[in-house]
Amino acid sequence: MSHQAAISGLAPWPRLAVLVASAQARRAARTGVVYPLSEQALRASCVAAQLGLIVPVLYGPSEHIRALARASDLDLQGVSIVDTPDVPTECARRAVADCRAGQLQALMKGSLHTEELLGAVVARETGLRTARRISHAFVFDVPAYHKLLMLADAVVNIAPDLEAKHHIVQNAIDAAHRIGIACPKVAVLAAVESINAAIPATADAAALKRLAAEGRIIGGMVDGPFGFDNAISSEAAKIKGIQSAVAGDADILIAPDLNAGNILYKSLIYMARAECAGVVLGAAVPIILTSRADSESSRIASCAFASLLA
Amino acid sequence: MSHQAAISGLAPWPRLAVLVASAQARRAARTGVVYPLSEQALRASCVAAQLGLIVPVLYGPSEHIRALARASDLDLQGVSIVDTPDVPTECARRAVADCRAGQLQALMKGSLHTEELLGAVVARETGLRTARRISHAFVFDVPAYHKLLMLADAVVNIAPDLEAKHHIVQNAIDAAHRIGIACPKVAVLAAVESINAAIPATADAAALKRLAAEGRIIGGMVDGPFGFDNAISSEAAKIKGIQSAVAGDADILIAPDLNAGNILYKSLIYMARAECAGVVLGAAVPIILTSRADSESSRIASCAFASLLA
Repeated sequence: MSHQAAISGLAPWPRLAVLVASAQARRAARTGVVYPLSEQALRASCVAAQLGLIVPVLYGPSEHIRALARASDLDLQGVSIVDTPDVPTECARRAVADCRAGQLQALMKGSLHTEELLGAVVARETGLRTARRISHAFVFDVPAYHKLLMLADAVVNIAPDLEAKHHIVQNAIDAAHRIGIACPKVAVLAAVESINAAIPATADAAALKRLAAEGRIIGGMVDGPFGFDNAISSEAAKIKGIQSAVAGDADILIAPDLNAGNILYKSLIYMARAECAGVVLGAAVPIILTSRADSESSRIASCAFASLLA
Repeated sequence: MSHQAAISGLAPWPRLAVLVASAQARRAARTGVVYPLSEQALRASCVAAQLGLIVPVLYGPSEHIRALARASDLDLQGVSIVDTPDVPTECARRAVADCRAGQLQALMKGSLHTEELLGAVVARETGLRTARRISHAFVFDVPAYHKLLMLADAVVNIAPDLEAKHHIVQNAIDAAHRIGIACPKVAVLAAVESINAAIPATADAAALKRLAAEGRIIGGMVDGPFGFDNAISSEAAKIKGIQSAVAGDADILIAPDLNAGNILYKSLIYMARAECAGVVLGAAVPIILTSRADSESSRIASCAFASLLA
């Protein structure tokens, strides 16, 4: 796919196309692409580079990468390769070290396992930890919704406790600012909109709302618990008698846990015909995670999202 | 809304319209409507009766019900009312007693709280318990999917353990048979498609698959854990290398818990423009639960679903 085709592939999702255009207007982030040994991963790096979204630096065995480029008809001219042994964790370690040395502003997953990449990122002495927990955020363009919609965390944190959710929310708010949402409305989701002792996510939601009211979460308006309907439909919120500026107009959805977040993410993509960009937040640099099943459009949009965060 | 309007309201969901037509071809189930003291609840009973889906028997204060019918321009001619004090739990108790006496084949929630109705249903001595646990199942017509899609449990069981999930699966399979799905493919959902000790839903999925293999769950093909994408998209399953007759072709999705199931349900309705029918299973009679935010189409489809189960 050419870079023109990649842009036109985003046509059904005009709000993500705007995100890509915003990123193109900025200086491209020097991005370490870790172990791009699948055609999809290598192609996405090349297309994102052609679009001016990233300046890729490939970490992996250079002979293999060049052979894959030839076989896939990809042009690596002008693309740096840091020749690394054919060991995914070693590629991750090298790229992380170069981030620490200030040589990279972003990281992108190639064809290694997510854990192999994130293991190097969260390493205590040699990684990219900050005071924040690591968390993931998606930005969706859902045709049935009236604006971009973020979702956290649908990828990294399995069963976040309140402290982890505190970081998930703050990371997502900070990311929202970087994509032009000045005061994001954050809806903390659960099965129901009232506090239920048997559903801990409802208590977490109340606590997160309080943390924001006390100024311990800043930069956004946090409310919850919300049922999904009340977060995104003002009609549904009205029927239930819910009074909240967040109701029906959420910019960010906070999932109760990974099962719920991940299932919601995939239902938006496969059933609601949405497209998304996704990035890991809370490390020293934004990290683009991709999955084998991701579309080319999603890979490009994720590079744009990361570039706006870098 | 007239009953003709109710049918034409289902036009965007032709597979649910077929379900309604199937129910119309059968004898209407005598259905106890518990405390129909909102216009929406009373109207749904009348429309479902006109459509030949149910023979309603209303439980509530008859003066109030008649006044509401007049104010709402609804015709109660030929509709039985069991005059009951204006106490929702007492209406529920009376309707449940009449179920036990064989006078009703289904129950329908009016404008009381779900817990008030289900409390009478699950009462040890006087309720409608069977050997099965109570669980809820939806049937969705999702425009982006190639057939009807069931989901359990998105409404009743908050954090089902393996035993509860065993019943949730068997109840859903039995219901699938009644709507014409001879050997339903059951996909047990989680965030990931591999067993992960930190995600108990993945272990539950493996156990449910084994229970089916051992003949302790019967009448369907059970597999999992599946990510949502692999359950409903054969393309996504292929990319991930998943070999299963269930993958990409699920008839029934089993949610990890209430948060995940409920959020998925609402995302299908609000974002994927789906419509659904929902019923509580596992009691002596099917129970139609409705929520204030439910559409008229959904209420009608739920009556049809219950009628096919009665």
